[in-house]
Amino acid sequence: RTLNEVLFFPSEVACVEHIFTPSLHHSCLCPLPHGVETSFSRFLRRILSATSSLDLCVFAFSNMDLSRAVLALHSRGVTIRVLTDKDYAAITGSQIGVLRKAGICARCDVGSVYMHHKFALVDGRLLITGSLNWTLTAVQSNMENVIVTDEPDLVQPFIKEFHRLWMHNDPA
Amino acid sequence: RTLNEVLFFPSEVACVEHIFTPSLHHSCLCPLPHGVETSFSRFLRRILSATSSLDLCVFAFSNMDLSRAVLALHSRGVTIRVLTDKDYAAITGSQIGVLRKAGICARCDVGSVYMHHKFALVDGRLLITGSLNWTLTAVQSNMENVIVTDEPDLVQPFIKEFHRLWMHNDPA
Ligand SMILES: [Zn+2]
Ligand SMILES: [Zn+2]
Repeated sequence: RTLNEVLFFPSEVACVEHIFTPSLHHSCLCPLPHGVETSFSRFLRRILSATSSLDLCVFAFSNMDLSRAVLALHSRGVTIRVLTDKDYAAITGSQIGVLRKAGICARCDVGSVYMHHKFALVDGRLLITGSLNWTLTAVQSNMENVIVTDEPDLVQPFIKEFHRLWMHNDPA
Repeated sequence: RTLNEVLFFPSEVACVEHIFTPSLHHSCLCPLPHGVETSFSRFLRRILSATSSLDLCVFAFSNMDLSRAVLALHSRGVTIRVLTDKDYAAITGSQIGVLRKAGICARCDVGSVYMHHKFALVDGRLLITGSLNWTLTAVQSNMENVIVTDEPDLVQPFIKEFHRLWMHNDPA
């Protein structure tokens, strides 16, 4: 059966520590609410479900939880490719430098005014896309939407477009 | 069979006059290329396919062709509701004032930092959503994506969210 899920934001704010460290579920002492499933926790789980690859094509990436998620996948051996906007990548708070320092391959779009996509492809099988940039404001303060789908008619064109953009922005 | 279509931008630039005035197809004298199907012409046709209602929830709306399309639908008797961002609506070039002057009901979001959605619901049946704002830069200069789908698992949550936001931003 096809997976089709829609998440709306702003998300409630809740602790996501147990998503990174399942064993800590009952012992986190931070002041945020615990045991609450939110749009953001669902989003984070989908990203962290990657077992072989994560192709990320996102205009703005400054969210620390999402940066932590991508770094966690990288350290598990998941192949990460990040395509982002050249102007936003240079902004204070952008996580692109952090990812690169960890050895993750990131390329900046050079062929358009804005590289305005906000999509991720998980294991070449699941498409996560919408209006949501990977920032804290987008997650906690804006009206936003994200679609999660494994419908091939939607996933395949995004795989093809990611490949095209990735090749087009080859830094070599 | 379910409709699932993906459009990528920037779009080639081509004349769209024949989409507004089918009888003019072979006689337009403007300098743009003619007879070319583009991402934007497909997008425009989907919007203009509305026969009963168009619910529009979009952060930035300054594109003149899309404004013309919404005005054309309104004059055909299609019920239009436009929900937009309060800050962008006040910007020079925003079409919200033009739509209101024509008698179209537009509401500005007051409940978030940005009303960052970019989706349209055609006849309560077709969802058009993605990263694309309704501006000329988005259409002609940016890397953007738009999904067109009538998959109920995707359409229904957006219908519900539109209703929620519309009620929440009741100007009365
Ligand atoms: Zn906690
Ligand atoms: Zn023409």
